[in-house]
Amino acid sequence: MGPTAADGDPLVIAGRRLSSRLILGTGGAPSMASLEASIRASGAELVTVALRRVAPGVAGSVLEVCDRTGVAVVPNTAGCRTAREAVLTAEAARDAFETDWVKLEVVSDDRMLLPDPVELLDAAGRLVDDGFRVLAYTNDDPVCAIRLADLGCAAVMPLGAPIGSGMGIRNPYNLAIIREQVGVPLVLDAGIGTASDATLAMELGCDAVLVASAVTRARHPELMAAAMADAVRAGRLAHRAGRIPRRLYAQASTSPAGLAEL
Amino acid sequence: MGPTAADGDPLVIAGRRLSSRLILGTGGAPSMASLEASIRASGAELVTVALRRVAPGVAGSVLEVCDRTGVAVVPNTAGCRTAREAVLTAEAARDAFETDWVKLEVVSDDRMLLPDPVELLDAAGRLVDDGFRVLAYTNDDPVCAIRLADLGCAAVMPLGAPIGSGMGIRNPYNLAIIREQVGVPLVLDAGIGTASDATLAMELGCDAVLVASAVTRARHPELMAAAMADAVRAGRLAHRAGRIPRRLYAQASTSPAGLAEL
Amino acid sequence: MGPTAADGDPLVIAGRRLSSRLILGTGGAPSMASLEASIRASGAELVTVALRRVAPGVAGSVLEVCDRTGVAVVPNTAGCRTAREAVLTAEAARDAFETDWVKLEVVSDDRMLLPDPVELLDAAGRLVDDGFRVLAYTNDDPVCAIRLADLGCAAVMPLGAPIGSGMGIRNPYNLAIIREQVGVPLVLDAGIGTASDATLAMELGCDAVLVASAVTRARHPELMAAAMADAVRAGRLAHRAGRIPRRLYAQASTSPAGLAEL
Amino acid sequence: MGPTAADGDPLVIAGRRLSSRLILGTGGAPSMASLEASIRASGAELVTVALRRVAPGVAGSVLEVCDRTGVAVVPNTAGCRTAREAVLTAEAARDAFETDWVKLEVVSDDRMLLPDPVELLDAAGRLVDDGFRVLAYTNDDPVCAIRLADLGCAAVMPLGAPIGSGMGIRNPYNLAIIREQVGVPLVLDAGIGTASDATLAMELGCDAVLVASAVTRARHPELMAAAMADAVRAGRLAHRAGRIPRRLYAQASTSPAGLAEL
Repeated sequence: MGPTAADGDPLVIAGRRLSSRLILGTGGAPSMASLEASIRASGAELVTVALRRVAPGVAGSVLEVCDRTGVAVVPNTAGCRTAREAVLTAEAARDAFETDWVKLEVVSDDRMLLPDPVELLDAAGRLVDDGFRVLAYTNDDPVCAIRLADLGCAAVMPLGAPIGSGMGIRNPYNLAIIREQVGVPLVLDAGIGTASDATLAMELGCDAVLVASAVTRARHPELMAAAMADAVRAGRLAHRAGRIPRRLYAQASTSPAGLAEL
Repeated sequence: MGPTAADGDPLVIAGRRLSSRLILGTGGAPSMASLEASIRASGAELVTVALRRVAPGVAGSVLEVCDRTGVAVVPNTAGCRTAREAVLTAEAARDAFETDWVKLEVVSDDRMLLPDPVELLDAAGRLVDDGFRVLAYTNDDPVCAIRLADLGCAAVMPLGAPIGSGMGIRNPYNLAIIREQVGVPLVLDAGIGTASDATLAMELGCDAVLVASAVTRARHPELMAAAMADAVRAGRLAHRAGRIPRRLYAQASTSPAGLAEL
Repeated sequence: MGPTAADGDPLVIAGRRLSSRLILGTGGAPSMASLEASIRASGAELVTVALRRVAPGVAGSVLEVCDRTGVAVVPNTAGCRTAREAVLTAEAARDAFETDWVKLEVVSDDRMLLPDPVELLDAAGRLVDDGFRVLAYTNDDPVCAIRLADLGCAAVMPLGAPIGSGMGIRNPYNLAIIREQVGVPLVLDAGIGTASDATLAMELGCDAVLVASAVTRARHPELMAAAMADAVRAGRLAHRAGRIPRRLYAQASTSPAGLAEL
Repeated sequence: MGPTAADGDPLVIAGRRLSSRLILGTGGAPSMASLEASIRASGAELVTVALRRVAPGVAGSVLEVCDRTGVAVVPNTAGCRTAREAVLTAEAARDAFETDWVKLEVVSDDRMLLPDPVELLDAAGRLVDDGFRVLAYTNDDPVCAIRLADLGCAAVMPLGAPIGSGMGIRNPYNLAIIREQVGVPLVLDAGIGTASDATLAMELGCDAVLVASAVTRARHPELMAAAMADAVRAGRLAHRAGRIPRRLYAQASTSPAGLAEL
């Protein structure tokens, strides 16, 4: 018999063993109650939080929700636009969150929120050298992804489409190339709009998926969180199962021999 | 709070209440042991079996597997190319299987296995008149689908792509139109190649998905059966959850205000 | 040397030799002046006109424009919903237009305007038997297309997408299958939104393309008519030229040897 | 009346006025005779040539063909993998070709041939500062494209897909974003496989298209060159014409009123 769904199939990032391959971003949640319900429904073990959200008096609640639900928090550098800003933010986050994990974001502007490759690579190199476990949010350019892996990032996180666009995976070919070329864990980050996008990401060989606004801004966030949990599991299982090839013409699933005489 | 994943959300076809929205075809299974493992992993409650497979001495085993796993059997008219053949086959199946349910297939030829609309509509009308519960396999033409529903079919089963092609849902727009126009249960049948195809079908508003060779011919059928169970659930939940809209440009999931001073 | 663009490459439908592979529909034209400019810019030699447009007092002008521009008129049965209606309309058109050519349209309803396969096949058979040269507008179902060719239609005209939708070719795989299976001229009809859709249709092996609202309802109809003329020629040439295969990875167009020493 | 196809609609790059919006790469041509026939059939006024091809004894012939066909030569830095190499190559080309135009390519490796964003931006800045007219080959990342324009490049040349892949425009959304954000001429470079790809590029707002292996490696290069000429013109005209919107449902091109009485 082949492998079964019950086999252990954990994801390991920077030495941490994860049962769930779904990571949740917290931005956009309509309320703390909704966020908590979504985290629980998602089964996620990792949650990313922007340092800026943890300013005194505002952020406490997000961390409390994370604490209550038992998830690990990975601080991110959302909003940073230069390597310098990102490094400073990561250092502040290391102190505030008592973790050397950081989801590195260095974006070009406030509208498209696309990664700036030059600043990103600069920041990634500096943070890795400084002992951080860097999970780097990047565009879907294979060259950037390879550079980030070569620099020693713990995970590479290519986008499927711009943050918050809900456009899914605009260029699956780039993801396929990245998967071929990059050995460290690959986490699809940004662009996911619905469950099938997450399933497709996993089928393409991603090791995990991060979703934020697809869940937090859905009409019913908790339902979508549950959908994403199933979707990521489905995609991972399908990836392991080995899909049938595509062909233009049909092939009968019932063999033509043995047709009942009429 | 909104609806939750734990809500009952059963599918009802012709008065039968189903918890699982995944239907399994049995064609192409490499062995009875594999088929049994796949049925169990899929959680399916309905399984389709070709009458021709139930010829004495050959078919017993498929039915035994169905019996052992507790699934209901829906006979199909696979291989029939005229209304007359299909009606005769359905009648024979009614006797053999002791059920008035029939998955109606009338195909044009042995290679493409595409539904023949004229013979199909003719057969559907006759079988409905004769008291059958007809689940009709059809192409993705909205006009055909509407005609089948108008004739009184219990479910309409449009293809995503040709049987056994693994090409997924070639024309989601047609499915969207069919969903708008047809009130009876819609079951995506044929073309599914992998889990994300099934998720997408459900997101488009299908009530259920039938897979056969995508599971039975996968490298590891049991794993793919488990994947499909998750995939269908994911798609249904996402459909109910109400996805975010697509937009070209990003929208920050972290609001720009409150950026940490550096 | 291979074939050249200057080679004669005429299209022959029902014995008529055509230099242009673009056919124009006249519906939706904002004015007769616009229609005339578009016909001239398109280089079309065939134009379809709905019989209903030729009611006394209204229609004269369309025919005058066709006469002035020297194009042949093919009457269509737009608006007909049954075989009987279509046959009667075709007969009336034969008298009014003094031609045995007819573009056969039998649609299911006034909103989707999708072909009704049963009525269409019935009408096509009757008209062919009655000596008409039938150019049949059909959906993209290969089975219907094959049946129409088998009935003796002079050309089969599958849709790319619903009339007026501008959605392009929703399912190129069906077109590819139809091209493999059907020997008579294939004219892509309906769905074209812009020039690249027409080019793609020709690359897929269509013999000609019919456009109506893509030209008549464009912001600048005459420009779009010129675009379509180029687009159809481009697609035909590319089809004959034999495109390079698709591959995931790059292949250098400059060979790596001979790199200048620096 | 609106604009017409006969209107002048020249492209201006770095002060040079071009009637043709098709640029030809010379790599991969099976023979000098084929290259010459393709250049003539394409109507191109600009042709790119790799400096390395112009080594004594080998390259003369390419330049002779360019000379004979009256096209302007733009040297490129194909094969360069660092900013330093690219700058040295551009300088050598300036002397050899007596032009300050350069098509800048800095690629990451010999297999994927994807642009290296960091080295590319570095090289572009240095060459612009040194007085070159830089046409920069880049990936489809909007951030890179904007940076190149900001540095003063004369044209930005995003890829549709990897060089030689024939995959067309993998991510039209990125191109649409680039078009919105970049004011200098945009030339689609790399990935074009067939005519419809070129038409689509122009419809998306590109100012020109560069093709190399799609023509030189086609089964009949001269035919494909002619196809590309038509395709680029078609796409430009369609872009100017203003296409109809896409809609799910049909809209009749023949108005329902005035149906002939039967």
